[in-house]
Amino acid sequence: MKLEFYDVNDFKKNANKAAVAGVMDVLRSLPLHVKRSDQHGKKDHLIFDPVGANAAIDTALVSLGWKPKIPIPEGSQALGTDIDFGKSGVLVEAQFSNYPFFINNVMRTNALYQAGIPLPPMGVIDAAIIITKAKLFEASNSTLYAEQAFDQLKFLEKAISVPLRVIGLFAERCTPLDAVLTQYHAARYSRTVVEKKEVQCVVGKPGRIMERERITLINE
Amino acid sequence: MKLEFYDVNDFKKNANKAAVAGVMDVLRSLPLHVKRSDQHGKKDHLIFDPVGANAAIDTALVSLGWKPKIPIPEGSQALGTDIDFGKSGVLVEAQFSNYPFFINNVMRTNALYQAGIPLPPMGVIDAAIIITKAKLFEASNSTLYAEQAFDQLKFLEKAISVPLRVIGLFAERCTPLDAVLTQYHAARYSRTVVEKKEVQCVVGKPGRIMERERITLINE
Repeated sequence: MKLEFYDVNDFKKNANKAAVAGVMDVLRSLPLHVKRSDQHGKKDHLIFDPVGANAAIDTALVSLGWKPKIPIPEGSQALGTDIDFGKSGVLVEAQFSNYPFFINNVMRTNALYQAGIPLPPMGVIDAAIIITKAKLFEASNSTLYAEQAFDQLKFLEKAISVPLRVIGLFAERCTPLDAVLTQYHAARYSRTVVEKKEVQCVVGKPGRIMERERITLINE
Repeated sequence: MKLEFYDVNDFKKNANKAAVAGVMDVLRSLPLHVKRSDQHGKKDHLIFDPVGANAAIDTALVSLGWKPKIPIPEGSQALGTDIDFGKSGVLVEAQFSNYPFFINNVMRTNALYQAGIPLPPMGVIDAAIIITKAKLFEASNSTLYAEQAFDQLKFLEKAISVPLRVIGLFAERCTPLDAVLTQYHAARYSRTVVEKKEVQCVVGKPGRIMERERITLINE
């Protein structure tokens, strides 16, 4: 996918370069993950599939030696019990859920960083990455989008000292894209895969640019 | 209701005393607001009613000269468009919603405070109060509870400089309480009141203390 990112607190200088390059490569190679919505107003529309995207990111990062689901030590669990991935002092969260979870991720990462708390498989945090999706993809109601995360980070920036990169997954409008269409056992919440197929999609239509675009299959 | 609170950053010294005393009085006099749940696993149980509690707090604070729904200036709206109440430099939020909104409230209040942004009807923020409910009341799934807010604040404390009091609404277990039972047009999400009546409730049962207790009517 196409990436945009927003760095604070000297992220580039502080983060392990090889680890960061690995994440960027994985995300650039990531196909768009979509599923059919069952939400009112967009029933059967293709929407961004957070479960599919998370699973693909997990598989790719673990194959590069990233440790998944690293437990947060007891006594520091006020904002959650584990972090998504860690390697060489770099923490990674993929955040495609409801928008208030972004600030939760930012502030707990910052608190763990400031306290210098070791997270055994990855060591202490030197820097962190939070992965989000762009607004342009149709998605479940109230889910976080990258532009919102960038705005919030700008607003919070003075309160945090952790070197942080927020990455947005974007796509070229009106351009064929590799995608994965997954059908789940139940349209909402289920993680049980019924069928997964590689497809090609296009985001948006020629002639008008919208903040949020329909995603259509090129051929089924 | 019975109140417990957690202060940071010299709240007492920095907050307007009369304004704070007004809020504390309103909350001490507040009856417990309940409604019937329609959520799986607690259908028809009495649960904490956030809409009723918010409306009662609104009426009481406005009658004491607090300004409701104060707009956040454009350019500072990354974490929301308005604050619940303000008076004499004291900002008040009532937060009975899903738990990640607490940290959103804390961090946006802190950012507005640090930037010294004037909120016209109340002036700049000198101090802030966030009102929450205790865990012991049965409530909708994933809603914030006071003990969780206290834990999160302790974890975030070093990152913020705004003088802040987080208040928890508690109740004595197994003791008759004044309460208001409201029936809404639809069990979930609706704010349209069908019937509102004053009742007496009791929280918990003698002989066992649970983290979360059933709320029962003394007589209907």
